[in-house]
Amino acid sequence: MATRNENLNNLLTSSSFADMVRNKLMKTIKEYRISHPRQEIYMMAWGDTTHCLSPTIVEALVDASHQLGHPSTYTGYGEFEGSTELRESICNSYYKDYDVEFNPDEIFVGDGAQSVTFDIQELFGVDNSVALQDPIYPPYLEANLFTGRTEIVYLPCDEKNDFVPAPPDSRVDIIYLCFPNNPTGAVATRSQLNAFVEYAKRNNSIIIFDAVYSAFISEPDIPRSIYEIPGANECAIEIGSFSKMAGFTGLRLGWAVIPNALTLENTAMGELTEMFRVAQSIKFWGASSLAQQGGIAALSKQGKQECQKIVDFYMDSAKLLKNGLTSPDLTCFGGIHNPYIWVKGADGQSSWDVFHYLLANAGIAGIPGHFFGASGEGFVRLSALSHHEQIDKAMNQYKSLV
Amino acid sequence: MATRNENLNNLLTSSSFADMVRNKLMKTIKEYRISHPRQEIYMMAWGDTTHCLSPTIVEALVDASHQLGHPSTYTGYGEFEGSTELRESICNSYYKDYDVEFNPDEIFVGDGAQSVTFDIQELFGVDNSVALQDPIYPPYLEANLFTGRTEIVYLPCDEKNDFVPAPPDSRVDIIYLCFPNNPTGAVATRSQLNAFVEYAKRNNSIIIFDAVYSAFISEPDIPRSIYEIPGANECAIEIGSFSKMAGFTGLRLGWAVIPNALTLENTAMGELTEMFRVAQSIKFWGASSLAQQGGIAALSKQGKQECQKIVDFYMDSAKLLKNGLTSPDLTCFGGIHNPYIWVKGADGQSSWDVFHYLLANAGIAGIPGHFFGASGEGFVRLSALSHHEQIDKAMNQYKSLV
Repeated sequence: MATRNENLNNLLTSSSFADMVRNKLMKTIKEYRISHPRQEIYMMAWGDTTHCLSPTIVEALVDASHQLGHPSTYTGYGEFEGSTELRESICNSYYKDYDVEFNPDEIFVGDGAQSVTFDIQELFGVDNSVALQDPIYPPYLEANLFTGRTEIVYLPCDEKNDFVPAPPDSRVDIIYLCFPNNPTGAVATRSQLNAFVEYAKRNNSIIIFDAVYSAFISEPDIPRSIYEIPGANECAIEIGSFSKMAGFTGLRLGWAVIPNALTLENTAMGELTEMFRVAQSIKFWGASSLAQQGGIAALSKQGKQECQKIVDFYMDSAKLLKNGLTSPDLTCFGGIHNPYIWVKGADGQSSWDVFHYLLANAGIAGIPGHFFGASGEGFVRLSALSHHEQIDKAMNQYKSLV
Repeated sequence: MATRNENLNNLLTSSSFADMVRNKLMKTIKEYRISHPRQEIYMMAWGDTTHCLSPTIVEALVDASHQLGHPSTYTGYGEFEGSTELRESICNSYYKDYDVEFNPDEIFVGDGAQSVTFDIQELFGVDNSVALQDPIYPPYLEANLFTGRTEIVYLPCDEKNDFVPAPPDSRVDIIYLCFPNNPTGAVATRSQLNAFVEYAKRNNSIIIFDAVYSAFISEPDIPRSIYEIPGANECAIEIGSFSKMAGFTGLRLGWAVIPNALTLENTAMGELTEMFRVAQSIKFWGASSLAQQGGIAALSKQGKQECQKIVDFYMDSAKLLKNGLTSPDLTCFGGIHNPYIWVKGADGQSSWDVFHYLLANAGIAGIPGHFFGASGEGFVRLSALSHHEQIDKAMNQYKSLV
């Protein structure tokens, strides 16, 4: 008979992050709601944007919709790499701001960072070893398990290293890095990233750099892109997204950079870029044209200014949340250059303990830290992307109770 | 060092369909254009829709865009399976028309049939044998080679079997079927499909049924869905799409049906549906919310009527094209219940010969049949989804010359 993909089947048994959130977390919140019918609950679990789209983006979406309704402006299939105009915008209105030069052929537009991150790892052999920050956004791990990789090295991120690990002690083929980090809220300095780039070049390793929270960095000294580090274009792939930067969590739009300068020892120059082009041509017929038109608007001068205001608004929420949760029982990390606050409970408390403490005292529902990996035990992740007024209400409740 | 995915690398060497079209076909057309500067060329190569979207769909897209710009109606992440409303529409306003019953949990919305078809095959083990129609839309083959499958059985589709093959002589694990067929323009009768369902049940095989051209079928006797065949829900996965049905080639929206009744001998009831749910949760954060709103509108009563008119318009184009290409040198298949016309040249002519004959005599650029597989040699695929006025002009030119 036809047989199943056993790698996937193993994931089914262990249950994925999305499943844990849906079934364990949501069930717990539902039960709490039933047993505390008069308490308001403020959802700060999802890293989901809540502020509406900027006017410039909405106008672009409306215009693009009307164009699809007229014979002279209707368009069908686009390029599977993304429209040239959008890829040029990503080069000229995003990377050039950080003095990073790419040409549009090195940019691949996808329907969000989740899809792109999954697709990128399929470029590599099953036998590659993989290093992951711990805790980390779980689909990185799941994608590698799905593909059948078994050699996973964890780089613990904790208070001792300010949630930024050093490169691995031994050599690893592929290293995932996410800064600003989900879930710990940490950012990495230039010299910390430089150590990884040097490690990768020394060891012929590949860095997959998740930069989807780059818009939240407000200090020029903190790199927004791995490519701000000299030599990174020879060893790093970067994932970007319009989700958090411009509120596209529902519209779906992200990208990967695979520099032509990036090589594997056994591949010709630029071949990895070409391999991804072939892979995408088999898998994908491009991101939605409307989302792409929205993305072009988001990277226009006016769009960028409007999006920056929304980012600033979220950072105000983060400040309100972080400053509000003052208690000898809690320590808050992150929330600066990052919309996530990583809340630690008192010594000996489990993630669920902290989760229930926040639920009982502030009505806040976060995500228990161990959902993101073993080193997340004892923490809860809160998202300042949640509704500002909910954060405000939660802080008032917390102040009155604690 | 990090190593590449060798399956993918092999595809790079052999070059993918998208690459062949871009580099070989487009180069040939470009060269012809340069050497024949005064001749008009009518592109009928792409299976790309050219008629603008129906007013009901445009209105839904405009409304949904405005909603994203208002605080009270903005939405972020949706469900990765697709919105419940859209999945209900697919059950109630698509499948119920053919007396097929599903519940929304058996429907998975994706960003087009290309992505969904790729993702579906990742459900299965690498060791599975695969049967493919020959000729066929090449990404089916490429997806299986990408995953590392080596046992590929081809089911030749030619004039002798009216381009509808019988089930394989020996047992095969996974069988791809595409009806109405791309590229041959053939449709399968109830009894022909029944033979495949019986084969699959007898052999514990899985059918992956591509129904993306179903809207072009105008006779109630020809099945639009594999599930019109009794027992198919126990052995078949179906891929559907809004691309051709509603002009969503650029918007990107498709779906898969994985019935709960579908089992592998070694999996529990409904487990394949659950496996796909986990796979999608790792890979994907849902199709663009705007495309989904458009899909709901396309399946409304008014939307369906409007889309049917556009389909009728394309079928008029197909008739014009098929009736126009009368010559002792050409035989035209398809073009009824199917927007593709599969043009055969005189005996002994290659696909490129037919391609150049059509280019020289009608200014028509099609796709050489061998791009779709060995049995496509000697044919050219023409798409009636092309601009109607271009088809009209091409036929006038052809009439005047031949």
